Amino acid sequence: MAGNSFGQLFRITTFGESHGGCVGVIIDGCPPGIEITEEEIQKELDRRKPGQSSITTQRKEEDKISILSGYFEGKTTGTPILILAYNKDARSEDYLELKELYRPSHADYTYEMKYGFRDWRGSGRASARETLARVAAGAIAKKYLKQKYNIEFLAYVDEVGEIKCPDIDPKYVRIEDIENNIIRCPDQITAQKMIDLIEEIRNEGDSVGGVIKGIIRGDIPVGLGEPVFDKLHADLAKGMMSIPAVKGFEIGLGFRCTKLRGSEHNDPFINDNGKIRTAKNNSGGIQGGISNGEMIYFRVAFKPVSTIRKEQITVNRKKEKVTLSPAGRHDPCVLPRAVPIVEAMASLVVMDHVLRYEAYK
Amino acid sequence: MAGNSFGQLFRITTFGESHGGCVGVIIDGCPPGIEITEEEIQKELDRRKPGQSSITTQRKEEDKISILSGYFEGKTTGTPILILAYNKDARSEDYLELKELYRPSHADYTYEMKYGFRDWRGSGRASARETLARVAAGAIAKKYLKQKYNIEFLAYVDEVGEIKCPDIDPKYVRIEDIENNIIRCPDQITAQKMIDLIEEIRNEGDSVGGVIKGIIRGDIPVGLGEPVFDKLHADLAKGMMSIPAVKGFEIGLGFRCTKLRGSEHNDPFINDNGKIRTAKNNSGGIQGGISNGEMIYFRVAFKPVSTIRKEQITVNRKKEKVTLSPAGRHDPCVLPRAVPIVEAMASLVVMDHVLRYEAYK
Amino acid sequence: MAGNSFGQLFRITTFGESHGGCVGVIIDGCPPGIEITEEEIQKELDRRKPGQSSITTQRKEEDKISILSGYFEGKTTGTPILILAYNKDARSEDYLELKELYRPSHADYTYEMKYGFRDWRGSGRASARETLARVAAGAIAKKYLKQKYNIEFLAYVDEVGEIKCPDIDPKYVRIEDIENNIIRCPDQITAQKMIDLIEEIRNEGDSVGGVIKGIIRGDIPVGLGEPVFDKLHADLAKGMMSIPAVKGFEIGLGFRCTKLRGSEHNDPFINDNGKIRTAKNNSGGIQGGISNGEMIYFRVAFKPVSTIRKEQITVNRKKEKVTLSPAGRHDPCVLPRAVPIVEAMASLVVMDHVLRYEAYK
Amino acid sequence: MAGNSFGQLFRITTFGESHGGCVGVIIDGCPPGIEITEEEIQKELDRRKPGQSSITTQRKEEDKISILSGYFEGKTTGTPILILAYNKDARSEDYLELKELYRPSHADYTYEMKYGFRDWRGSGRASARETLARVAAGAIAKKYLKQKYNIEFLAYVDEVGEIKCPDIDPKYVRIEDIENNIIRCPDQITAQKMIDLIEEIRNEGDSVGGVIKGIIRGDIPVGLGEPVFDKLHADLAKGMMSIPAVKGFEIGLGFRCTKLRGSEHNDPFINDNGKIRTAKNNSGGIQGGISNGEMIYFRVAFKPVSTIRKEQITVNRKKEKVTLSPAGRHDPCVLPRAVPIVEAMASLVVMDHVLRYEAYK
Repeated sequence: MAGNSFGQLFRITTFGESHGGCVGVIIDGCPPGIEITEEEIQKELDRRKPGQSSITTQRKEEDKISILSGYFEGKTTGTPILILAYNKDARSEDYLELKELYRPSHADYTYEMKYGFRDWRGSGRASARETLARVAAGAIAKKYLKQKYNIEFLAYVDEVGEIKCPDIDPKYVRIEDIENNIIRCPDQITAQKMIDLIEEIRNEGDSVGGVIKGIIRGDIPVGLGEPVFDKLHADLAKGMMSIPAVKGFEIGLGFRCTKLRGSEHNDPFINDNGKIRTAKNNSGGIQGGISNGEMIYFRVAFKPVSTIRKEQITVNRKKEKVTLSPAGRHDPCVLPRAVPIVEAMASLVVMDHVLRYEAYK
Repeated sequence: MAGNSFGQLFRITTFGESHGGCVGVIIDGCPPGIEITEEEIQKELDRRKPGQSSITTQRKEEDKISILSGYFEGKTTGTPILILAYNKDARSEDYLELKELYRPSHADYTYEMKYGFRDWRGSGRASARETLARVAAGAIAKKYLKQKYNIEFLAYVDEVGEIKCPDIDPKYVRIEDIENNIIRCPDQITAQKMIDLIEEIRNEGDSVGGVIKGIIRGDIPVGLGEPVFDKLHADLAKGMMSIPAVKGFEIGLGFRCTKLRGSEHNDPFINDNGKIRTAKNNSGGIQGGISNGEMIYFRVAFKPVSTIRKEQITVNRKKEKVTLSPAGRHDPCVLPRAVPIVEAMASLVVMDHVLRYEAYK
Repeated sequence: MAGNSFGQLFRITTFGESHGGCVGVIIDGCPPGIEITEEEIQKELDRRKPGQSSITTQRKEEDKISILSGYFEGKTTGTPILILAYNKDARSEDYLELKELYRPSHADYTYEMKYGFRDWRGSGRASARETLARVAAGAIAKKYLKQKYNIEFLAYVDEVGEIKCPDIDPKYVRIEDIENNIIRCPDQITAQKMIDLIEEIRNEGDSVGGVIKGIIRGDIPVGLGEPVFDKLHADLAKGMMSIPAVKGFEIGLGFRCTKLRGSEHNDPFINDNGKIRTAKNNSGGIQGGISNGEMIYFRVAFKPVSTIRKEQITVNRKKEKVTLSPAGRHDPCVLPRAVPIVEAMASLVVMDHVLRYEAYK
Repeated sequence: MAGNSFGQLFRITTFGESHGGCVGVIIDGCPPGIEITEEEIQKELDRRKPGQSSITTQRKEEDKISILSGYFEGKTTGTPILILAYNKDARSEDYLELKELYRPSHADYTYEMKYGFRDWRGSGRASARETLARVAAGAIAKKYLKQKYNIEFLAYVDEVGEIKCPDIDPKYVRIEDIENNIIRCPDQITAQKMIDLIEEIRNEGDSVGGVIKGIIRGDIPVGLGEPVFDKLHADLAKGMMSIPAVKGFEIGLGFRCTKLRGSEHNDPFINDNGKIRTAKNNSGGIQGGISNGEMIYFRVAFKPVSTIRKEQITVNRKKEKVTLSPAGRHDPCVLPRAVPIVEAMASLVVMDHVLRYEAYK
């Protein structure tokens, strides 16, 4: 109810502040018997962690996690799984000067009004550090869905500022191409342009936004998603919009489909060697809120991060005008680190709907 | 869990099929003592009902509702409110030929796979007729929020196909201008262009999509929304994406903000005659998932409706190729009738978060 | 959240007041394809309805239900099921004199304080008439559980005032013996004593309480119930305690087990022809909150109904002392009509846990 | 959904196994600004911890907790609170011989059937050690309710085996009298008898059950609890029945009220110096599921603990008959250590309903 939980059957609750004791997640409703190691989870986290390349923040956090419950002899037990990372490189003093003011487009002001006061170290609970908990939980969901349904989750950077990756059929996107460069764009030429732009912007002390494309593919059962409010794409939308800095979501052709005629947009059914499939997939694998077995793809818009090195004007708690030039270490563009977060949120949504689906099979 | 409910404290559950006995809603958690009449609810429903203008479906449904519980002496009682509309103009025979086939981009196939069989009359539960239940519930939420917080909800058609309404500052949009034409676009010249386009497309037996812009304004408390998963815009996204035919959602500048630099996009705080406000509002009234007191605005992308008069190829239940030319009566463009639905969903989201907010005040 | 819903996956929401338009239930999450008729549901309701015998209230309500959604060609469709009974014999004028006062041990006072005012006709939402909705939903749960798991639900009157039915092994209780008399006690001699006592008390204008015993038997899967808070017996307790007039619940030996030693109370496991079972069943079929495959049995304590014909002293809304001698038609003892309610609530709890169980199989 | 969470607005999720890494709780929805120290929480835990007296298990666990999130400068922040106790005195080897068999009336068998395998160290998740998490969360609820509503929670041992404490009016029960002896019974003479009985039983290698009485008193608002399913006493019942070893619950007079006539049991309203109150309180402070402002009292039945030193017969995983004589260190009677658990669960239920109540004020 206080909004720190996600999912109905596979339910995660995240906790922790960027500069408090720790950040982590409880997973309740995880099926028993999933074989997974801390290393497998760590591998996903390493794709999200700060300091991994020249275009991410240089803040150093190992993001080293431990599984503290619900785990026995290398397997999940069916009871709640606690995964926790202690905070290490937490220089609270960096934030002392921020204590009395409200950074533009940050959550400082809204938190303080909501709760009466705020944990001013880092961004407290609003910090993107919270997302490591989602990635950890997603690693378990991914493992299960890969093994049981052969479903895989990919995401890549499709746009940075004005630079757009050429359209690629989701079925030909390869994970190796994505992970082959530090921006995580499968088209290597576009990737380099993006990297160049980010470096330029970093040098200006500014930040830039972009778009991530997500793909869910494999043997997706027909029937995931509920008809009315819990449509599969409505839950994907909520999951993605809950990621810090996200401002837009679209499924299938999304906003572009508004320009088409129904006769162009509709996906006719065909008999594909005895299997019912659609001739094309403008719908993005979901019809009436329910998966139709085709590939699911969607796009997520990220704003330019609010924290910049450039001088900004704002007010302090006494409502006085002040000038702000933050000293913290930040990302000029969150996109490359957001790729595993988008994958994780997608896997959490699908995992929950797979269990809901199983309850009625 | 089966996805027919929405909201945590102000919780609605909708029920009913387009050609079954009735369609309606239960509202659980409605505050007691709200004075409202069936006529006030009906007025909202009349903006959604079919047959209201030349550019909507000519199917005739009165959509006449009754309040059957939770209501006494003109006021809500605090107990569950049942609102119900019986189905009248339900020509099931129109659908007999559809019984054995799967219409392109409809939910026929996914429902049948999910449930093992389907109610083939109309679109059953997937029918947009379900949304009248949302509008009815929204009418109560709107009344409460207007009276208690002076919050109002507006929506208008911003795009139809390639035609786009000029940008209007949300604070100057007037309800009279929106309701002044049958497409519900506040710019009268654009409105006429949109109407012309829709009529042309209807004559071709085709359909077209578009974008609706939603606005929430008035004395919005600072503090609505929960920090992590239940961000105010994440719940708005889920609510909007759950409306039939919606394929995209964006808050504030949305996808457009990805092209900006942080220094351009950030909204500096200012002292506005003793009140903290933002100098501009690129964020769309929400920061860190929590309302900051500024106007909230967002956009929702609707696909061209799947039902068209043009001939289409698809398969039947025996997986044989068939030709489909539907005889039913349908909207060439759902946008004008979707305006009150978008308003209703927005009011349901805000209503729920207002009660959640009150619990901690 | 407002407490009108029960269950997680098989979720019912009841609505309606005793003297409003109707009383009914929405079932969300019902599996598709259950064949059931209105008559089968009606049969269960007839066991609950007023006026069925000389020892129940003579208020005449047919309690005739209709299924208005989620039902097609004789089967549940998987979408929300609306079942509704219109109120007929609602003499609101009977209650006019009660409008200004608070009946002892009724919900008049607490409702008015909670909601600011109350629907004073009958007992409004607090009326036991609400339970017909539970019985209707339970009829569907029972049908499903009988067909899919061969589970059956029985309940009988075990005590009325000081009169107690001799202990009967749950496996030998027969439904015919229970339904053979108007008090619903399987021991015919005890039944007559109970009936005599109730008639005597009715003549005195008073009321009496008692205890109902509930039994769940058949091929109960090992594994229903969740380990910590949603223990199977904790959910049974909540369900039973939510029935009007219930003041106590016990599982297995219940309060009696507190007098035993662990060595007496423990149920040793045995090999029963290759199947693991317990040698005896003091635990009532549940261990660690999870069904062990043995019969489940429990007892539910009902208070003497608050509405009596005898004169009583109380206060009115002006806090003045007043004398009350109610004219309405009431039950001297709710036990016989509560038997199907206890069965229904038990079936709703088991149904929900069966679906939760299925989600992980 | 997997049953490790309790509460709607004040929602706790417990985690951890008796012999895993740790045991703890996440509290989501805790109001911000509650001043509390780890020491205050520890004080409650010390009343629950093993080894505190001669009649409890001699297992030594410090149960030392840390608050790891949601806490800043001595106050709760409104974000999720993680409280965690690492396991210290965890001799897993004690349990090696139990690995292959099913202890009578333990959860070994049901867990193994439900999850496919089990964490055989201690009782895993079924261990009463889980309840320390409830007591920790309850300490925060108690603090808030004391400060904001002057509500206090007491519990005491009312029965051990056949020994019963004389009836005491809930308003005269004093915490000092309860805590004055190791069994936690406010009547010192009865307390000594209970202690003598438990020592005798311990020497026999057996165990014994009993009954705890709970009291909620202070300025309880009229209006806590929801009318239908979430009646205040239904949620209390669920909370209490979810405590390990609990087999029965009753509110007010409970099972005893079934012997009374309505005219005896009913609580007439009176004008008590301008305030509406009841002349007596057979209802236990709740009418129609909603608090009426009077004291709330209830009783909870605990079975004799399953773990005994006496030899028992049971079966192993190969379904062979085996003899079991456990070597672990256990409580001959859980009642004295269960007193703070009953108080904690009561405070968690009331806390949740207080927030739900606030949402509509």
